[in-house]
Amino acid sequence: MTRDEARARDAADPLRELRDRFELPESTIYLDGNSLGALPRATAARVAQAVTGEWGRDLIASWNTHGWIDLPTRLAAGIAPLIGTAADEVIVADSTSVNLFKLLVAGCTAQGERGTILTEPGNFPTDLYVADGVARLLPGRRVRTVPAGDIAAAIDGDTAVVLLTHVHYKSGAMHDMAALTAAAHAQGALVLWDLSHSTGAVPVDLAGCDADMAVGCGSKYLNGGPGAPAFLYAARRLQESLRSPLTGWMGHAAPFAFGDDYAPADGMKRFLCGTPPVRAMAALEAGIATFDGVDLAALFAKGRALGDAFIALVEARCDGLTLLSPRDATARGSHVSFAHPDAYALCQALIARGVVGDFRAPDAIRFGFAPLYVGFEDVWNAVEILRDILATSAWDDDSFWVRAAVT
Amino acid sequence: MTRDEARARDAADPLRELRDRFELPESTIYLDGNSLGALPRATAARVAQAVTGEWGRDLIASWNTHGWIDLPTRLAAGIAPLIGTAADEVIVADSTSVNLFKLLVAGCTAQGERGTILTEPGNFPTDLYVADGVARLLPGRRVRTVPAGDIAAAIDGDTAVVLLTHVHYKSGAMHDMAALTAAAHAQGALVLWDLSHSTGAVPVDLAGCDADMAVGCGSKYLNGGPGAPAFLYAARRLQESLRSPLTGWMGHAAPFAFGDDYAPADGMKRFLCGTPPVRAMAALEAGIATFDGVDLAALFAKGRALGDAFIALVEARCDGLTLLSPRDATARGSHVSFAHPDAYALCQALIARGVVGDFRAPDAIRFGFAPLYVGFEDVWNAVEILRDILATSAWDDDSFWVRAAVT
Repeated sequence: MTRDEARARDAADPLRELRDRFELPESTIYLDGNSLGALPRATAARVAQAVTGEWGRDLIASWNTHGWIDLPTRLAAGIAPLIGTAADEVIVADSTSVNLFKLLVAGCTAQGERGTILTEPGNFPTDLYVADGVARLLPGRRVRTVPAGDIAAAIDGDTAVVLLTHVHYKSGAMHDMAALTAAAHAQGALVLWDLSHSTGAVPVDLAGCDADMAVGCGSKYLNGGPGAPAFLYAARRLQESLRSPLTGWMGHAAPFAFGDDYAPADGMKRFLCGTPPVRAMAALEAGIATFDGVDLAALFAKGRALGDAFIALVEARCDGLTLLSPRDATARGSHVSFAHPDAYALCQALIARGVVGDFRAPDAIRFGFAPLYVGFEDVWNAVEILRDILATSAWDDDSFWVRAAVT
Repeated sequence: MTRDEARARDAADPLRELRDRFELPESTIYLDGNSLGALPRATAARVAQAVTGEWGRDLIASWNTHGWIDLPTRLAAGIAPLIGTAADEVIVADSTSVNLFKLLVAGCTAQGERGTILTEPGNFPTDLYVADGVARLLPGRRVRTVPAGDIAAAIDGDTAVVLLTHVHYKSGAMHDMAALTAAAHAQGALVLWDLSHSTGAVPVDLAGCDADMAVGCGSKYLNGGPGAPAFLYAARRLQESLRSPLTGWMGHAAPFAFGDDYAPADGMKRFLCGTPPVRAMAALEAGIATFDGVDLAALFAKGRALGDAFIALVEARCDGLTLLSPRDATARGSHVSFAHPDAYALCQALIARGVVGDFRAPDAIRFGFAPLYVGFEDVWNAVEILRDILATSAWDDDSFWVRAAVT
């Protein structure tokens, strides 16, 4: 792909105007939407409305008059179509880590005597850490890690919950959700999917896979902002058998009756805990709205094509980088990772030149292609800058220093 | 107190200009800062800066360049002086309910074989519900409730944690923190204080009381906005023995090393879980800043004087209301509750006339006197409107309807 061809692909792209839904700084090629999504143009006004027009003007009455109390379900209805499920199987609450804890404890408890939480080594750290915390807390539970390719075969009659991140945070490798869910069900196990790097980036069909439980992040491809609220999914058939350990008042069947005894709400509301964070939810609402009216199949196809183009250009034009991600785009999320012996310093040099990816220890650089706002010319320009830095060794002088600083 | 005397007290009040730190709607007397604090004037600009000037401009780099990663400890340093402790004994994270869970599990686990979580009936529901959830989760633990006056005598060798709300959400009654903490320590028990209705409203001296653990809310007297992040306190002497069950990556000793094994951070950071909610923390920072440079002793004395004046005026001028709160201001938080047989309808009538308190089932109306922005003339005017509504039975016509609607 030449630069002219990249421009031609952008010109022919029916999705190219979606970029106008975002505020993107000039002179930055932002390839880190897999970590923190870009700022939607509508967000500042929506947040200002929540602060000044709602809280400031109507104070406590806003819980009803501005529908604050309904935010967790209203936002869920916007997320559900992105993950192939119904609105009443999703709710927005807390952080991904807290939601993982709720569903992992609920799933393990619902599974009775089964003792094993099965996951993979190198899974996103918070998933492993939360699993470790759950295993310490619940008697007779343990965490077992086996490499990704061995997971289906490792599921057995002692497996309570299989805990997997659908798209790997570092490599971008994507699990086969349908096959692994079927393998788990064949052994009576449940699967809890972390969709943080999938939602809004790749096709997810929870209903079609008969998926059990899932969580996901609001700050990445959903463009909800730093530390945005996260979401949970539980299949309707399981909801009544799952009991959240975090029994805060918003998950109560009648929170405003102020009774002394706990009774879980029907449906997904039982997974609410504390008071919803209104401004953060307002911002997430604006983030989810960046998908309004978008042809999702075309969007996800564009993400794959951007990744393919990036891999091809890097391998044709740059030396010393080794692809860490699957070459097959259908087995990959919307980010691509390359290894380089001086990855940290190289990543800093790229950032200094306006190409924002990120470093993941020990030797990976991730480049994310959020298809709502990244184009083919961005890909071409990013690789050209990468090629130039590598050719001139522009990052070499201070690489010892930056490596020392990061450890 | 006459209206002229109320005006004279405001005119002589050295704290009266603090009201200018808030956006308050004209024609509203806001007496619900104990539920949702008013909007500080600085908040909209601070949040807009976090959205447009930080996220929008510097994207992922903002975690470092704008100190996002330090928000949990930076905000803790602002809260610590309000509760009589050191900055390194506090951290800001998650919701009050989630933080209660962390410390209650950690405290119970640290207490080994002791099986009882001791609390009072009618405690704030989320505290009771979280305690119930913890007792279900941890083998051999149970919740025991005894009336407030009997708690000290009920603490025994089986008491793991005494869980109390310092200022009662409905009655405003305040526990004697020093005496109850000493009683618990004499029996080897820990005390976990919920400071949601205390922080920023009454003197709290955690260090002086040798308090063990506490949580508190950011959305009430701290003026952090709806669903603001909450905080936790753990005494330095206990921190290393307390282990959060919510082992998310931000509580890890080295979160950016991305290792597979969990190791808790030193100090209060071990109580972090997921990624911090940046905009909500920015808003809370502006809320905490409303206390900058304020003479806290004078502020809390003003809160007591406002409550005293309100009680005296209601009892002198209004019929049919029964005081539910302690008459002694030193045994009370900064809100006052009265019972009335038609409390819900009366509360609605007050709100329609611009006096915003709130209803708590079955028969209470709460009036909060946030001393940063409520004055003596507000108190006088609120009671005059209350007197007028009661004298004209202006709420009677639809009281059946509203009572029906709320059940």
